[in-house]
Parts: sequence; C-alpha cells; structure tokens
Amino acid sequence: MIIVMKPNPSREVVQGMVERVEKMGLKAHVIEGTERTVIAAVGDDRKGNKAVFESYEEVEKVMPILAPYKIASVETKPESTVIKVRDLVIGGGTVGVIAGPCSVESEEQVMETARQVKAAGAKGLRGGAFKPRTSPYSFQGMKEEGLKLLAAAREETGLAIVTEVMTPHHVELVAAYTDVLQIGARNMQNYHLLQAVGEVRKPILLKRGASASMDEFLLAAEYILDQGNQEVALCERGIRTFETHTRFTLPLASVPYLKARTHLPIVIDPSHGTGVASLVTPMCRAAVAAGADGLIIEVHPDPKNAASDGAQSLTPEVFAAAMEQCRKVANALDLNM
Amino acid sequence: MIIVMKPNPSREVVQGMVERVEKMGLKAHVIEGTERTVIAAVGDDRKGNKAVFESYEEVEKVMPILAPYKIASVETKPESTVIKVRDLVIGGGTVGVIAGPCSVESEEQVMETARQVKAAGAKGLRGGAFKPRTSPYSFQGMKEEGLKLLAAAREETGLAIVTEVMTPHHVELVAAYTDVLQIGARNMQNYHLLQAVGEVRKPILLKRGASASMDEFLLAAEYILDQGNQEVALCERGIRTFETHTRFTLPLASVPYLKARTHLPIVIDPSHGTGVASLVTPMCRAAVAAGADGLIIEVHPDPKNAASDGAQSLTPEVFAAAMEQCRKVANALDLNM
Amino acid sequence: MIIVMKPNPSREVVQGMVERVEKMGLKAHVIEGTERTVIAAVGDDRKGNKAVFESYEEVEKVMPILAPYKIASVETKPESTVIKVRDLVIGGGTVGVIAGPCSVESEEQVMETARQVKAAGAKGLRGGAFKPRTSPYSFQGMKEEGLKLLAAAREETGLAIVTEVMTPHHVELVAAYTDVLQIGARNMQNYHLLQAVGEVRKPILLKRGASASMDEFLLAAEYILDQGNQEVALCERGIRTFETHTRFTLPLASVPYLKARTHLPIVIDPSHGTGVASLVTPMCRAAVAAGADGLIIEVHPDPKNAASDGAQSLTPEVFAAAMEQCRKVANALDLNM
Amino acid sequence: MIIVMKPNPSREVVQGMVERVEKMGLKAHVIEGTERTVIAAVGDDRKGNKAVFESYEEVEKVMPILAPYKIASVETKPESTVIKVRDLVIGGGTVGVIAGPCSVESEEQVMETARQVKAAGAKGLRGGAFKPRTSPYSFQGMKEEGLKLLAAAREETGLAIVTEVMTPHHVELVAAYTDVLQIGARNMQNYHLLQAVGEVRKPILLKRGASASMDEFLLAAEYILDQGNQEVALCERGIRTFETHTRFTLPLASVPYLKARTHLPIVIDPSHGTGVASLVTPMCRAAVAAGADGLIIEVHPDPKNAASDGAQSLTPEVFAAAMEQCRKVANALDLNM
Repeated sequence: MIIVMKPNPSREVVQGMVERVEKMGLKAHVIEGTERTVIAAVGDDRKGNKAVFESYEEVEKVMPILAPYKIASVETKPESTVIKVRDLVIGGGTVGVIAGPCSVESEEQVMETARQVKAAGAKGLRGGAFKPRTSPYSFQGMKEEGLKLLAAAREETGLAIVTEVMTPHHVELVAAYTDVLQIGARNMQNYHLLQAVGEVRKPILLKRGASASMDEFLLAAEYILDQGNQEVALCERGIRTFETHTRFTLPLASVPYLKARTHLPIVIDPSHGTGVASLVTPMCRAAVAAGADGLIIEVHPDPKNAASDGAQSLTPEVFAAAMEQCRKVANALDLNM
Repeated sequence: MIIVMKPNPSREVVQGMVERVEKMGLKAHVIEGTERTVIAAVGDDRKGNKAVFESYEEVEKVMPILAPYKIASVETKPESTVIKVRDLVIGGGTVGVIAGPCSVESEEQVMETARQVKAAGAKGLRGGAFKPRTSPYSFQGMKEEGLKLLAAAREETGLAIVTEVMTPHHVELVAAYTDVLQIGARNMQNYHLLQAVGEVRKPILLKRGASASMDEFLLAAEYILDQGNQEVALCERGIRTFETHTRFTLPLASVPYLKARTHLPIVIDPSHGTGVASLVTPMCRAAVAAGADGLIIEVHPDPKNAASDGAQSLTPEVFAAAMEQCRKVANALDLNM
Repeated sequence: MIIVMKPNPSREVVQGMVERVEKMGLKAHVIEGTERTVIAAVGDDRKGNKAVFESYEEVEKVMPILAPYKIASVETKPESTVIKVRDLVIGGGTVGVIAGPCSVESEEQVMETARQVKAAGAKGLRGGAFKPRTSPYSFQGMKEEGLKLLAAAREETGLAIVTEVMTPHHVELVAAYTDVLQIGARNMQNYHLLQAVGEVRKPILLKRGASASMDEFLLAAEYILDQGNQEVALCERGIRTFETHTRFTLPLASVPYLKARTHLPIVIDPSHGTGVASLVTPMCRAAVAAGADGLIIEVHPDPKNAASDGAQSLTPEVFAAAMEQCRKVANALDLNM
Repeated sequence: MIIVMKPNPSREVVQGMVERVEKMGLKAHVIEGTERTVIAAVGDDRKGNKAVFESYEEVEKVMPILAPYKIASVETKPESTVIKVRDLVIGGGTVGVIAGPCSVESEEQVMETARQVKAAGAKGLRGGAFKPRTSPYSFQGMKEEGLKLLAAAREETGLAIVTEVMTPHHVELVAAYTDVLQIGARNMQNYHLLQAVGEVRKPILLKRGASASMDEFLLAAEYILDQGNQEVALCERGIRTFETHTRFTLPLASVPYLKARTHLPIVIDPSHGTGVASLVTPMCRAAVAAGADGLIIEVHPDPKNAASDGAQSLTPEVFAAAMEQCRKVANALDLNM
C-alpha cells in the first residue's frame, strides 16, 4: 500500500503514520519527494486497511499494491481450473456451450429445446425455474416443477443442467436437481447466497454484476472459493453503460484480462450481453475468437411466445448456424468445440 | 405501447401483429406513415408484453407509453407518503436525519455516537449489525449482538433505529430490534428479500442499486408495496459512472425527478454518494436545497479506527456543523429540520 | 414522432398540439388510451421538432420513430460502401488492416515500422503528425515534417497513409500528403472540422467519441456525407465506462449493430479500445470474428521508447503473430484479409 | 510515480528500471515487499513518463503520485481566482448568474430576455450565435449577426455577454463582441481552440466534456492557462452515464472536489446538466448550496418556439422565481448573489 501525504506534513504526522502502519504488521518505508512525502507499507495489505489511512485528513490518497483477491489469483494457483460435469467441459482448450430457454415453461418446450441444442453441439442445458424479474408483475418461474422438467430433459439427452438459485434457503433444493448452480448478475454481491453455494460440491456459474468492477467480480468468486468450493466459472454478461442500443455492453476484453489474473474459466453470455437476437451470433463468434472458455446462450423454440427474454432468444435453427460458425473459428484457433 | 415496424411490412405481417395485440386484451391502431408503419397498442401494457413484440424480426422497436410501476406512482396515490416512527419524520415538509456509524463495533461506540448525533439534531440512528462487504476478508458485523446494542441506544436516546437486513431468513430477527429496515444497494434486486420485508409492518429504507435505472428502482419499491407494506422510503446513494474521484456519483436531480413520479419520500445518502468525508457536508446542504425528505449520514466518534467506511465518516463535531448549515438552508426554504 | 400527453389533457390542449404538428407539415393522429392520450405525428420528423413538443408542460414524453440520420442509412443506400485507396480495401468482404506508430518520431522509426507492418500484411500505415494530447506538457507531434516522413514511407512501401487532422485550417495541408484523413475521437463533434473534411475528396476515417451515442456517431458521419464526401469509414475505438482495468471499453456489438443500419464500413481500433498491449491481439481476432471491415492497430519498433501510447503499442513481431491469427479467423469465415 | 513490478523480477530487470528512472532525472527507491517489488520514482513525474513504464512487460502497473496539472493547482496559487467583467463577479463569495437563450434568434427575443433576466438578478447574458448541433439538419446559429444582437443587448442592459466560440479562426471575431468566451463541452479537448483562446485577454468559461475525467478537465484548463490567459472559469454541465431520465447526470460533488484542488472558480449549468426544465430550479438551489461560484441557465421568452433546447429552457417568470429561491439559500450561507 502506498500512502501519499498532502504537501508538507509535519514530522509528527509522518511518525504517527509509520507507527500505525507497523501496528498492522506491515513495514513502513518513508520516501521524501520534492513535492510529496510517500509512505510505502510493505506486506499483505488485503485486509481493508486502505480505508483506515484514507480517513486521515493529512493523507491525499492511498494506492493498493496487491490485488484484493487471493484464492482466485493465478499467483496462488497457476494451472487453469477446468469445469467438467457430464459431457460439459469449460476451459483447458475446450469451449463448452450451454444453451436453452430463459424460463422453463412446459415439458414440451424444455424437451424440444434440449434435443435441438444438443443436436447443434451444446453440452449443457440452461433454463430458469426460479426467475429474478425486474417487475413483480412478470412471470416468476415454475419453481420446483421447472427443476423436475430440467432433470427429465437431462435424463433423456444427457445434457448437464445449469439453473439459477436466488436465495440461500433454495440452495439445497436446486442443488438436488441441477449440475451447475448459476448465481445471477443481480445477486453477485448477495453474500449469504455466495457463502451458501460455497458449501455445495457442484460447479458454480457466477455472473458478473452489471456494474461490478473486475476486483469486485473476483472477490465475489473469492467468497465461494473461501468456503471450499473450488469449481467456479466466471461469466461476463455485459455491463451497464451509457450505450442504449444494446441492453448491456459486452466487454470482450474481460476474457484476456481475467485469464491473465485468475485460473478460473471464463464464460460469455452474448444473449444478456446484447439483449438483441440479431447481435448474438456475431458476438458468439467474437467471444470464441477472444479466447472464451464457454458460451451460455438463450435458445427458445418459439421466441415470440416466450414467457421471458424473447427479444434476445435465438431459434434452434439460428442457434445451430451460430454453432457452426463458432466451430469454424474455434478450429482455426486450435480449440475444441 | 408503440410498435414500430421495419420498412415496408407486408399486409399479412401487420394483420398478424394486430391480432397478437388484441389477443393480449389491448386495442390496436395502425398508422401508416411515409417511412414507417406504426401500431399503437392501447391499454395497460405493464405486463411485460414489450419483449413479445421485440422478438418479431419484422419489428424495429417497441416503445412503452406507461411507466411500468403502478402502486408507487403519484397517479395511483397523489398525496405524499410520510414516514413517521418515534421522532423521525421523513417527508411532508420535514427533513428527517438519520446518522451513525457504518458498523456497530462496541457499546461505547454506539452510545457515544447516539448521544452526539441526537444532540446535533438527528432523529434516527443508523448502524450496521449485518454487513455486506465486498471482500470476504473484511469485518462482517457483530450480528445479533450489534442489534442489541442499537436497541440499547434507542432505550437511552429515543432515536429510531435504522439497520440493514441482508437475507430473508434474518428479516424476523432484525425486525424485532429495529424501527426501520434498510435494504442495501447490492440487494435492491434481491426479490426474495424485497418480498420478505414487504410482509413486515415497519418502514423500509430502500437504497438504489449502483446501476439501477429509475424504473428498476421504483419497481423494486413496487415489490415491497405489492406485499402490503406501504411505508417505503427511497434512498438515492449514488450511481456508478466513469467518474473515479468520488466512490459513486450522486445525482441530486433524482430528488425532483422522483417527486414528480412517486408519492414515496426521498432520502439522500451523501456518505456513500461521495465516499469522501470532505465532500459530505456540501452534499448534505445541496440535498436539502434540492428538496430531499431525509438524509442518512455516516458518523463515527473515531473515523481513523472505524471497522469500515472510515474514509467517508464524519466526526461528531463535523456532523454537528453540517447539521447547522443544513438547518439554515432548510429554514430559508421553509422546511422543518 | 409519438407525443405522450400527461394524464387527462384538456380538449383544447390536444387540439393545440394537433395544430402545431400540422403546422410542421406532419399529419396528426390522436389516440385516446385508457390512461394516456397519444398523438402520432406522421412524416419526416428528423428536423429537431422533438424538443418543441418536449417544452410543453402538458407533454410527458416524446419518442422519435425515425433514426435522425438519412444519407448514412442503409434505407437510403442499401449497397455497402467500400473504401479503396492504393492496396487498402475496407469492406465488401475484405478486412483492411492499418498499422503503425501512434506518433511519427523519426525517419528511421517510420520506415522500419512501414516495412515490417507491410511484411505482416498491413495495407495502410497510420502515424500521427499532429497529435491531440490530454496534457499541454506532452509531445505534440512533428507536424508537417511528420507528414513528409509518412509520404516517404508510402513512396517506398506503397502503403496507404492514414493520419489525423485536428483543425479546419490544416485540412488542405494534411490532405496534400495523406491518403485517408482521420478524425480523432475528441473531435467527433467538431462540426467545422467535419464540414471541412466533407469538402475533401479523400476517404475519412471517423472515430467514435468516447461517450458518443450511436445516433450521434452516425450524425457526425452525416455532417461529412452532407458536404458531398461519400467515403467515410466508421471507427469504433471504445467508450468510456465505469470499467477502469482497460483504458476504454470496446463494444464489439457495435459492428453488427452498425452494419444493420448503415452502408458505411466499420473499422475497429483495439489499441485505443483497450489501452493495454497484451489485450490487443485477442481483440483483433474478436473484431474480425464479429465482422469488422477493418482494423487499425498501433505498432512501434520500440514501445518502451515511444513518444506516446507505448503501453498499447505492439512490437512488429507481436503484430505479425496477431495478423496470422486474424487471417485464420478471417479464412474460417470466408473473408479476405 | 510508483512502479509495481510483476512477481519475482530478475535483478537485471530491476536494475534496468532504476537506470531508466534516473535517466529521466528522477530518483529511484527500490522497495522489496513480500509479494511485490516496487520502485518509487521521486521528482516531477508530470511529463507523461507513466506510459513508458507501462510498456514494459515486466511491469504490473504504474501509479502517479502528483496530479498532472500544475498552473491550475491550488498548490501553485493558493488564493482563489475571481472573474470580474462588468457587473458579473464569479467567485470570492459571490455567485454570478449568467442567463439567456440557447440560441440568439432575433433582436426582439434577445432584448426581451436580456431585460427580464437582468430584472431577476442575472449579471451575464448567454446566447449562442455559432451553434454546435448534433445534427447537420438543425439550426446552426445566426453567426456574426447574432453577435451584434448580443452586443446591442449589452449596450442597453449593461449585462456581460457570454457566447461560445467553436473554431480557432472565429476567436478574434467572437472576442471582438463578447465579454466571456465559452468553450463548449464538445470542444473541451479541441486543443487548437484551447490554445487560441489562451492568447485572448478575456475570461474563458470552459465547459467540462460529457465524459471528461477531472484530470482531463483541469488539463484542458491548463492548455489555456499555459498560453498566458489566467481568467478561466470551470463549468460543470453534467456527465454521460447510464441514467437516461435526464439528458446528462449533474454531479454536484464536483464543486467541493474542484475547490480543494484548483483556484479557478466553478460554475454550474443545471440546464444542460438535466435537460429538463422542471428539474432546473431545484438543481440551481442545490448548486448554490454546494458552494458553486456561478450559475449559467437557459432562459427563453417562449420555450415552445425556441430554435433549440426548448425542453430545458425556463420562462422568464420561472427563472425569476428560481433566482429568488437561490438568493434565500445564498443568504442563509452568507454568500452574495
């Protein structure tokens, strides 16, 4: 941690800072510059001590040296984490594809989608049984009945099931049916929920919050990892910006950025990342080219009659065409898909 | 809802759209323009039908006419909602002030802060017992013991207690101790939690999510109102923007914007809204001048040793000076404070 | 244009609005809904009349039907515009690559870069002679001498020259030396400059402003097209968001979005779009996969000693490797590169 | 400047960095931490050397210690700069008010507005003669004829004239008629224009760009100051965020933030800062309460027929009422207005 003092601090103030730094178990180096005095506090500064120094009136700013996450870091574990569940592989040179409807609506809808996305190359089936909806007047999901339909689709197709859990006391129920538990963007900082899924021994797909910084995203993963669950995939699903022509802005540079800092695999969600069906296929191709370890895509047999997210759902035909294009890109870059 | 078709739609397509609109119980008006055909769907379009039409390939865009919230709207209830609990009044021409530490840390800290903020004019005492923290390595709160200290401070000072609840299964516990339940910004779209506090009969202070739109904010309130709890105060606490010199950007125009649309009172949080103690006092004055119904401010007897948020906490002395300035502004504008 | 009235407008107010609409040469349709009265104003509503209606107190909101740009629209010109100058082709199934240093610094630097980027497959040479710099204390460019060095590099290599012009009275000078004039992001709404380059008969590379909406971007192009210069390439170079781990956020969904609306070709700038050299190669691949018509990339023979933008410049070796990967992606998708 | 190395740098790399730092005339201190090696480069690091170190592959990040601006800094000039021209005073405890139409449209319009804003307490008259417009199809201003009307209004009322200049070759012309030259938000980084007005000996009102950081804003001022013109007022007019209910988001915390860092006075533009007439009055009051040194407000005798910006213009009556409220706030805080 680097503590920059305001101009011309008194000797006593600097001495007080040094003592405070040392009381924290860090080592202090004082550097007198021409315009500023700087105190470098050496040691593990992840414990939130930054705010302590920011609260001193004599301090101009405090700059951390280390990233605030630890278990998620490549420095802690250099080898990449690969998620494997049934035939779904995410990472390690394989692009795993999860596809399916936003909401589970009926047996027929789930079964038909499952068969078609499997035929097109998906290895995972997504589908919401518990739905977080912005409006209390929107469809809230089929709940446990939806989970049963997903399990039945797995029975038939062998696809790994990916579904969202929204609150800690549902974790056990959802985990009983699903292969991968999804934490939605709106719950990325729902810490009780993160801790609850940290105790499960199934992989977690953690979606980035719409305005979460990269450090906040990795710290949310850290909450899960810290409970002992090491199978976390990070999902970039777009951030909120001034841009309104898409529902969210999908920053694909997150892929190489994250890969340089964490061993966790990175999945891209181009459906929520754009919110517009016609933009999904090009963004799928781009995600694969950027190095993503997986894709999660909304597919609905009849988007016009979908209970939710129809505007961003692909038809099974368009999805199949997108997969073919993505495979070409993957092959060109020596990736499995 | 206004449905704008792509150029030159076929007669059949338009007819199909009209039928779809009417199947929803809305009335369709077709308007043939020089460059576009537009279908106006008349009736209550709040039920999420927008996405249905957006999923048609022949549709260029869909524009809602009505705001998506209903119970929160001034059209439903023109008279302002005023929150009154003990001596704390928020709204109706009175600026209610809630102050206190970010986290409850000890009996001495809570008691001293309570006495001092009361002396300076606060009517509510804030303090976190359950703390949502970005990092799993940060202090997570004193939990029930913290609630007991808050209740003890109320016993002595008569201040109304305001504290955060983070997960549905804590609602009963927290409600047993507190006067106002706070929903934090990170939980604004935690719908199970919103529904749980909607069943309580105590006022709710709902903080705006850092990237929530105004409609999303009012729909979050709608979740609570829809469960029967009519006492909701909206708290603007800053949004995430490209601006980094403050922790968040505090858009005070939210105050008059919301007042024109909802009957719910508006509270401003200049502590989180700036993240910097030296900016809090001017933003308190500005919030009162903008017409805010309340303020919630972090005050700590010793910010340098605070367990959290020291950088944005005022000392009791600075808080007292801020209150005096705010009262001058309030008096000049014929507001009680 | 759709004019939504506030609840319960008087008959006179509605009649007044209708007359105002008709005075503008538009046709008015009044639709009485259950909760709102809506007036649809039919005809070309691009002339800024929206603000007129927004200034009525009785109006709740005004929603345009037509996009505000016209010459840039695919509706006006369905066939794609292809930029061709020397061997550089941008669009029509060919991905044109422009590469070179941020600033022209010396004859040796320009010549060496030109030779190397040509060998790796670039068809255009970029290089700044007049440099817009955030700080007055930074290097401001070699000016005309820099233009001469670029022209000399073209002489030797045949590469098309792309360089920025910053102010109207330099247009003639820069146009005398360069093949493509670049308008930088900071000047995207410098209307005198847009009009000045609109009078030139050389292609323009128009960079998107860091916070420009898509409509503003296309209207900036419209300024140029409106002066008679039909050769405009749009360059997405990243937008400013809350994200700080990259210099800007590069929204590749701009590519398919723009392609659906304009006939102008789209170039991606992954160097400014990320600001970090290690992120440039993956974003080059992703841009090609997303369907970009061109790339503009900063390459410097010695980034550590670059006069500007060293942190985001590729070495010629890294650039050559990136080109090879991009060509694989392009070939897989049947694009020329 | 603090240079943080990636983990485990070789001795040679560190030695190379130290030499590079010293070659720049800075002093290097190497600090070996438990997880990182850090090099503190002591001395004036404003010259853009940061990018040099960021271009080293072995460097993780570079953090500047000093703000990049110098002449604008309170450290260079602790006493506040006060702008005085005719009766308009901005700063030093006086809130100067500039009001008038977005565009100059006719003699009658300008004269009537001038008389009315003067009667309500304004000391400056704003009005655009050269208009930057997003669309080439919008009204572009009356140009020199507009300047003459402004000068005539000054003749009669004594108000100081404030008008925008858009391009360097208009500076002389505009300066001949006006008292204060305004640089618009879209031109904040038009460096040729900044340098041109830096040579004028009249005050400059510099508007913040819609996505300019605070450092960029102050560096733009630095361009003007560096040419010798010391009379610069900074105008916060709102930033572009995800928020769409207002045209821009007006961050009033800019006022105390800037006042702690620069001696230049701060003016707030609540008209552009909100884009909605009904929000302007509360934001005027809030700006005064936040400590602004001036206000610039759009006032039009007939907003419904304004050539531009009608939606955000106040009528003279509403303006007069806003002024009265602002004066009450100013008086309560011992400010002149």
